[in-house]
Amino acid sequence: MLRAANIELTEEEAAEIEVCDYELGDHARIGTQIVIYENNDRYCAKELIMFPGQICPEHYHPRIGDYPGKRETFRCRSGEVYLYVPGEPTKNPRAEVPAERREHFKVWREIILKPGDQYTIMEGTPHWFQGGPEGCIVSEFSSPSFDDKDVFTDPDIQRTSNIQ
Amino acid sequence: MLRAANIELTEEEAAEIEVCDYELGDHARIGTQIVIYENNDRYCAKELIMFPGQICPEHYHPRIGDYPGKRETFRCRSGEVYLYVPGEPTKNPRAEVPAERREHFKVWREIILKPGDQYTIMEGTPHWFQGGPEGCIVSEFSSPSFDDKDVFTDPDIQRTSNIQ
Repeated sequence: MLRAANIELTEEEAAEIEVCDYELGDHARIGTQIVIYENNDRYCAKELIMFPGQICPEHYHPRIGDYPGKRETFRCRSGEVYLYVPGEPTKNPRAEVPAERREHFKVWREIILKPGDQYTIMEGTPHWFQGGPEGCIVSEFSSPSFDDKDVFTDPDIQRTSNIQ
Repeated sequence: MLRAANIELTEEEAAEIEVCDYELGDHARIGTQIVIYENNDRYCAKELIMFPGQICPEHYHPRIGDYPGKRETFRCRSGEVYLYVPGEPTKNPRAEVPAERREHFKVWREIILKPGDQYTIMEGTPHWFQGGPEGCIVSEFSSPSFDDKDVFTDPDIQRTSNIQ
């Protein structure tokens, strides 16, 4: 997918792509692939790769002491992503979530991002997203990331789990 | 160049590409094209487009009151960029600068970035760069940008000038 989108990685980066299944053991349906380009004390940049229909489950980025929480801008680079945020629930949303986990998806205002579209998620805002029929690549620009501090709606989720 | 690199812009973004000549009136040699994706109070993301041989002249991002100055990460997306920072001057550097402005280029440690390569320029560090033979597209991830506060080595330069 990255090659098809003309996004080049170094060999080291390609070897270190983070493959996250949120410790649910259902990676094809609930998972995310992440390339971290930079994460320093001032800003962060990543590439998020979602396979077709793959879901990043609902979560928010909390305040941590003096740190006001992560703000992040998603910019779709290829494919289509269905993003959900608080607000009036969208009728007939595109996303499909596993029935047995449906209760852990609370926000249903739909934002569809196609290549060139972007959306900024403010600090503390719950959100989740799903790759469209061809999956998607999303550039994330943000304040510093502390992924292990993310708060997920689904109590079964651990953010620390990565699979190879 | 953006299309060839599979980088999509919205119509609004395409209409608002910043074309900067630093008020030198020599845009083909000294100039930069910039797409600002996001510039908020926490982080900034841009795409920098350099035509073949085009130079972004030497400057640094100063401290502004409590703001410690801009830190920025350049990630080459296509083409090749020759970046210059403080340190041991590189012998036989790739860059060529106009003879009449040569004195305003003081740092000559060369870093060559090809697609997938990146480099972070710390706060307050003088730097300049030149597009390679095919030009380049560079993603910039950074702390917030205050371009009009940039300090250029060349006293003739004004950062506020943009041409269409």
